[in-house]
Amino acid sequence: MSTAKAISPASAAAALTELWSPRVLAEVDDAYVKVAKVKGNLAWHAHPDEDELFLVLRGHLRIEMEAGAVELGPGEMYVVPKGVRHNPVADEECHLLLIEKRSTLHTGDVVTEKTRSLDEQLRPLPGE
Amino acid sequence: MSTAKAISPASAAAALTELWSPRVLAEVDDAYVKVAKVKGNLAWHAHPDEDELFLVLRGHLRIEMEAGAVELGPGEMYVVPKGVRHNPVADEECHLLLIEKRSTLHTGDVVTEKTRSLDEQLRPLPGE
Repeated sequence: MSTAKAISPASAAAALTELWSPRVLAEVDDAYVKVAKVKGNLAWHAHPDEDELFLVLRGHLRIEMEAGAVELGPGEMYVVPKGVRHNPVADEECHLLLIEKRSTLHTGDVVTEKTRSLDEQLRPLPGE
Repeated sequence: MSTAKAISPASAAAALTELWSPRVLAEVDDAYVKVAKVKGNLAWHAHPDEDELFLVLRGHLRIEMEAGAVELGPGEMYVVPKGVRHNPVADEECHLLLIEKRSTLHTGDVVTEKTRSLDEQLRPLPGE
């Protein structure tokens, strides 16, 4: 018998009860796969040493950057390169899959009331 | 004006014309995000030093492992831990998003007629 279990990022994101509070779903080497439920805007910030992948599971996300914005619909993704200042904005509730290095701080070089520690991000998902 | 462009892994995978021939869509630090179109089985193999993430974009994938198999439907994912021998099998055509380190060989420690070099995986996608 295998104990291997499929993971549904969409279900995990939908089960989240708190906005802007990413949770770690899986590790791939030194990268974390996270899900988050977001609405409104996070904060302008940058990750000087780490790229960050955003994949929209549900809804729409606008990633504002100084050179312009990218609009992501369901199933679309974008990688914000290291060092690029960005601000994720969702006019309506949006569910995301994120890929970040273990070392990445989700609000990068700024701390806001939305900043969550890695311990908070590693808490079990609702329903687990 | 921004030159930032959303990427649709599902569209990129659907546009592939060759089975079992992953293409690199994006880089996140030292990880590659790839898409692949698969049908049938690849080969039993392991990646001694790298985890590998499989996310099903369309269809179904069974990842056979010595301790048992995991079945993935659309939107579901699984991380095969480093060192675990596995064989991806799709009874019908299946579209995948993969996350692997740059150093990962897609057929791991074996070479088959399906093995593709990294240069082959870095070719532009069809339609680009």
